[in-house]
Amino acid sequence: MERISASTIRRLSGYLRVLDDLVQQGGDIASSMELAERTGVSPAQVRKDLSHFGNFGRRGYGYEVGSLRSEIRAILGLSRRWRVAIVGAGNVGTALFAYKEFHERGFDVVAVFDTAPERIGQRLGELTIEPMERLGEICRERAIEIGVIAVPSRAAQEAADAVARAGVKGVLNFAPRKLAVPRGVTLRDVNLAVELESLAFALRAGAKG
Amino acid sequence: MERISASTIRRLSGYLRVLDDLVQQGGDIASSMELAERTGVSPAQVRKDLSHFGNFGRRGYGYEVGSLRSEIRAILGLSRRWRVAIVGAGNVGTALFAYKEFHERGFDVVAVFDTAPERIGQRLGELTIEPMERLGEICRERAIEIGVIAVPSRAAQEAADAVARAGVKGVLNFAPRKLAVPRGVTLRDVNLAVELESLAFALRAGAKG
Repeated sequence: MERISASTIRRLSGYLRVLDDLVQQGGDIASSMELAERTGVSPAQVRKDLSHFGNFGRRGYGYEVGSLRSEIRAILGLSRRWRVAIVGAGNVGTALFAYKEFHERGFDVVAVFDTAPERIGQRLGELTIEPMERLGEICRERAIEIGVIAVPSRAAQEAADAVARAGVKGVLNFAPRKLAVPRGVTLRDVNLAVELESLAFALRAGAKG
Repeated sequence: MERISASTIRRLSGYLRVLDDLVQQGGDIASSMELAERTGVSPAQVRKDLSHFGNFGRRGYGYEVGSLRSEIRAILGLSRRWRVAIVGAGNVGTALFAYKEFHERGFDVVAVFDTAPERIGQRLGELTIEPMERLGEICRERAIEIGVIAVPSRAAQEAADAVARAGVKGVLNFAPRKLAVPRGVTLRDVNLAVELESLAFALRAGAKG
């Protein structure tokens, strides 16, 4: 498969969300116009994005909602479930744990770690918050594939090193600093301030939408 | 100014973060190569992005860190501070409130609202959680410009309607559903699951980086 950019993946996630809504509303067919309008991109962009993966649509007819949805789920690696550990049970970690959309999308949080003695041993849903010292052992036992870094900046590199040593192949970093990960480990950064900055830009520029 | 895409803005935020680090480390000059490597894009992309806004760099010399930083801050609308209200004092709202990066980037959370009687009146930092009924009045009193929607999906549209009625011009939506806002109000959606999906895609495809 050709190399797909991060922004294409982001748009595919958007299309998937629209298709999910359409399924719930009993819709059968989606046009590229409809997908475009509901995700805020151009119809040409929709067609281009979907063309990377084969021909899902028929000209003048549109896309079959059910099959396009399955295809995008498969493309995004969502036709299976993923086992996730959250490192850091503070505000961000707790919010992520409670974020229902993760579970709905196929991500199961099966371990939570912290360093604070008063947090360790506390319950979070059905989980017990575990000490960082047990991270390697638990990640292997529970076959964890994705580690979410939700610790303060100063502790983030250490946390990423620990999950990489434990054999975790994907790291999602919420700490506002750039982390180094070994070859073979995939890193994605989430910076929540970026979204506010994008909004500030739009407000400043007086742009719509 | 020409129309700038959301992904350009996202990359500008990334460059700004690198420039902030360079300033802290006492760096004077940044090459497009350096900005590219530290943000994971190509040097050509860096030059293209920055060329939208004028000529900051000198060929074979690089960009002056201090002035490029000021320029990007101005472009992003960060040379001023923004007044923000968070609607929803649950897990997500509380995590956002505690997210230091917002304040560092120029966003001041000056009001928090909730509907739950047991939450209303509680303290959150220096703020008191206020009832939704007072949203219009407080948004006007405190000159709120950006509303962050951190309520469950089913309550999200109502919350967005309320902040728009209160004259708020920007809405950042963390609820996993598409919201409608009146003309003149700018909406940005944050879907945290999208980032996990992007990671799942990379892990599935066996891609690096």
